[in-house]
Amino acid sequence: MDHSNWGLLEDGPVSRVLKLSELAELVGGQVRGTDSVLIRGVSGVSEAGPDQITWVGHDKYAKKLADSKAGAVVVSPDIGPTPMPRLVVDQPGRAIIKVLTAFAPPQSAPPVGVDASACVDRTACLGEDVAIGPNVVVGPRCRIGDRTVVHANVSIGAETEVGSDCLFWPGGVVRERCRVGDRVILHPNVTIGSDGYGYELLDGRFEKIPQIGTVVIEDDVEIGAGSCVDRAKFGETVIGRGTKIDNLVQVAHNVHIGPHCIIVAQVAIGGSARLGAYVMLAGKVAVRDHVRVDDRVRATVSCCIFKDIPAGATVSGTPAVDNRQYLREQAMVRRLPRMAEQLRELSQRVARLEQAADH
Amino acid sequence: MDHSNWGLLEDGPVSRVLKLSELAELVGGQVRGTDSVLIRGVSGVSEAGPDQITWVGHDKYAKKLADSKAGAVVVSPDIGPTPMPRLVVDQPGRAIIKVLTAFAPPQSAPPVGVDASACVDRTACLGEDVAIGPNVVVGPRCRIGDRTVVHANVSIGAETEVGSDCLFWPGGVVRERCRVGDRVILHPNVTIGSDGYGYELLDGRFEKIPQIGTVVIEDDVEIGAGSCVDRAKFGETVIGRGTKIDNLVQVAHNVHIGPHCIIVAQVAIGGSARLGAYVMLAGKVAVRDHVRVDDRVRATVSCCIFKDIPAGATVSGTPAVDNRQYLREQAMVRRLPRMAEQLRELSQRVARLEQAADH
Amino acid sequence: MDHSNWGLLEDGPVSRVLKLSELAELVGGQVRGTDSVLIRGVSGVSEAGPDQITWVGHDKYAKKLADSKAGAVVVSPDIGPTPMPRLVVDQPGRAIIKVLTAFAPPQSAPPVGVDASACVDRTACLGEDVAIGPNVVVGPRCRIGDRTVVHANVSIGAETEVGSDCLFWPGGVVRERCRVGDRVILHPNVTIGSDGYGYELLDGRFEKIPQIGTVVIEDDVEIGAGSCVDRAKFGETVIGRGTKIDNLVQVAHNVHIGPHCIIVAQVAIGGSARLGAYVMLAGKVAVRDHVRVDDRVRATVSCCIFKDIPAGATVSGTPAVDNRQYLREQAMVRRLPRMAEQLRELSQRVARLEQAADH
Repeated sequence: MDHSNWGLLEDGPVSRVLKLSELAELVGGQVRGTDSVLIRGVSGVSEAGPDQITWVGHDKYAKKLADSKAGAVVVSPDIGPTPMPRLVVDQPGRAIIKVLTAFAPPQSAPPVGVDASACVDRTACLGEDVAIGPNVVVGPRCRIGDRTVVHANVSIGAETEVGSDCLFWPGGVVRERCRVGDRVILHPNVTIGSDGYGYELLDGRFEKIPQIGTVVIEDDVEIGAGSCVDRAKFGETVIGRGTKIDNLVQVAHNVHIGPHCIIVAQVAIGGSARLGAYVMLAGKVAVRDHVRVDDRVRATVSCCIFKDIPAGATVSGTPAVDNRQYLREQAMVRRLPRMAEQLRELSQRVARLEQAADH
Repeated sequence: MDHSNWGLLEDGPVSRVLKLSELAELVGGQVRGTDSVLIRGVSGVSEAGPDQITWVGHDKYAKKLADSKAGAVVVSPDIGPTPMPRLVVDQPGRAIIKVLTAFAPPQSAPPVGVDASACVDRTACLGEDVAIGPNVVVGPRCRIGDRTVVHANVSIGAETEVGSDCLFWPGGVVRERCRVGDRVILHPNVTIGSDGYGYELLDGRFEKIPQIGTVVIEDDVEIGAGSCVDRAKFGETVIGRGTKIDNLVQVAHNVHIGPHCIIVAQVAIGGSARLGAYVMLAGKVAVRDHVRVDDRVRATVSCCIFKDIPAGATVSGTPAVDNRQYLREQAMVRRLPRMAEQLRELSQRVARLEQAADH
Repeated sequence: MDHSNWGLLEDGPVSRVLKLSELAELVGGQVRGTDSVLIRGVSGVSEAGPDQITWVGHDKYAKKLADSKAGAVVVSPDIGPTPMPRLVVDQPGRAIIKVLTAFAPPQSAPPVGVDASACVDRTACLGEDVAIGPNVVVGPRCRIGDRTVVHANVSIGAETEVGSDCLFWPGGVVRERCRVGDRVILHPNVTIGSDGYGYELLDGRFEKIPQIGTVVIEDDVEIGAGSCVDRAKFGETVIGRGTKIDNLVQVAHNVHIGPHCIIVAQVAIGGSARLGAYVMLAGKVAVRDHVRVDDRVRATVSCCIFKDIPAGATVSGTPAVDNRQYLREQAMVRRLPRMAEQLRELSQRVARLEQAADH
């Protein structure tokens, strides 16, 4: 992409200006309305100003555009007319990724090479154009693939292999003998490969069970800030390709997560649990150890999965049950005061009938 | 404050000795009883010894003083008499902050200046009397205000601005382009400005939505150990002035937290949620994305807020409802076995009436 | 142990080969079947191959052996016959620890001595054979006991004392004046000794209550990745000897945890709470501040303990009640739709009786 239209703002970060027509070309869409409006950024429907573009993904949000001050809007073909010029695209989700990328400030990263303050073991093997930031530690016999960027204060243990085009943000730890695929993003302060939590109670003391396995993180995985993935007791803990893990998530030893899962913040997955493909766990969900959660299962916020869940199910509650059952039960709990009253009233009516029968 | 009465204990940390009369002068209170008792520290009512001062905030704890060995006690004017000398003050809360400060050991910090092992980019701009500890990394074009202290192994990304009198404990990460106000305290291993969690499912793969916004942390904010504040998709994630965040809290992208909120450990706040002023979220509370929680709302431990909550409400449960409704429903659940029995018994009585009617 | 039978695998980590008879000698067990089978590792019943040993702890898993390809199995005397050679031991749990240890790859650690990149204050006192890794920071007047290993990027504050044979994984922070016993393991990115969360609302602002206490971690404690233990307001936060804490756990100020407790991932323990000995808190449990949880209490996943729990109890739910009561209530909730139907039906029967009585 041509960066010639980047300019340095007075006393601030760089910013970019694009005509709506240029954005249309960029995303492969068509403009309805003035296509010469100048766009300097992206914002929400309610927050956007006249030099910002916004977008509407769902029809139900389209009416909010009436009050919006946005200079332009990205919409799907079925939305319109709009009070401001609109950029019509078949897939607004795909288009907005391109628009956001266009306005993303240039990302600062350590330059290619090894920072003078980094400690890279002489037996470690770095690919081409690798960037190792300040105070990074890379252990013996590590391998790091081409173009991977490792930010400040990251620690990588001995014999760990990291693929190409990875991005490790500052402060993370990847312990020894782990394997990380290509295009993996590790956010700040992650822990990969810590000992699994396993003890035997022997003579009144908990003796540590050695955790001699490792962690495999497949291609295109992203792991959020502060999240932890424990190494296996033996064998491997696996995070399947394309899976995206949010912040402060706990993945215990020997867990296998399938491809393309969505694991939202503060989820905890117990030891040896198995997740299929396209599983979506909302925030704070717990999965008990040894449980199997099949493809495309969705679990709602804060539920606790105690037993195997079949493919395609949506589950809620503690213990997690089918979402419809859960909603029915919750509605019943909400009606309990009314039920208690009905019971009382019915009891009185029965007592009256009994009295009448006695006479 | 005069430090001349600090003495170095044999083989241990420094300690301080103050007469009760000196403490009274310090906090602006009055002594009832012997004012020459020597105080060397602060402790709880049950744990304090004869050379320690304790305090009683609420009348209901006053009776515990009968069994206390404390050398003195800080109380409000309505409490007394007490078995030991008491220091009477109008605001015990304010007084105890001064007393604890008086007995706080001197806090060790890196000396003013930049540690030889730190990597401060030559384009970064440091204020007066800034202290940059060992192995700290400060990126290009950062600004750090006067008297701010940055402890060991902290990483600060490019173009981030930090105010004056801040205190960053070791191991934290503040990514690029964030803005941090004055007197902000970041506890160890915090993450500020990590990418928000956003993807579009395109052709069966989750494509990353660029997170091009930033984080603004206003004055007097404190953020607990291991907590994470994600940068905005666009615009800003905001932590309002005076808000105090405990450990292991997750704040998602585009969240706006108002001033003077209390966010206890392991809370998770979903994307674009809005909190007003003086909101109090107890431990483990979840707030769904896009939800609005108004001023002075209180949410009890572990509840999940799924929809907007009006100002002043106290909410509980999953989904969170008014606390009184929640307690009523919980009481009903507790009575369910009794209700089931009543239903059974009533059914038998009705059956008997039906039989009688048939004859 | 003799390491002469370690061999370097082509292009990979080292591996070990042991005859089943050698393993029998190692664990003090007896072989039933061919004792010359060569074992190169350990795996689960379903995953193990012909050169791996597996184990069966409970009788109910023994039938899975029929489909196992494992080369051998560790079992207790009451299990058998088995399709593959078996190694019979009195305590399979103890034996498998020895077997896993035998096959554990040699653990890489920084060599004894202080890495050139580490910043160890000249007043710090290191024991014999201490290993201080790259970029580690050790503050003034610290003491670190014999043979303790501190991995990369760990920060240890002033005057903190660490015992012998400890193992600190990378990225952790132990703040000033903490005391850590012998054989303590701190996993990556832990925080020990951060300020407790305490404020007084004065004139509309939350004023920080100084947290002048410290943390005491007794012998043989293990603290999981990303977990936080706050220092006491005054006095000590205590983690009792032999207690094992999993990842992302929050321990607030002035908490006292007794010996030999099991605290699973994402637990939060509120300020001044007291736990007895052998308490087991499952994942995501919350303990309210000032609550006392007595010896051998077990709390099930995600429950919230709001009041004191007597010794030996098993509790569940929010608020946590006796587990049997909880299960009974949950069963009742599950029956609510049926109860509502019964109530409706009963009401109709009563109405019919009333109509009949009217005639």
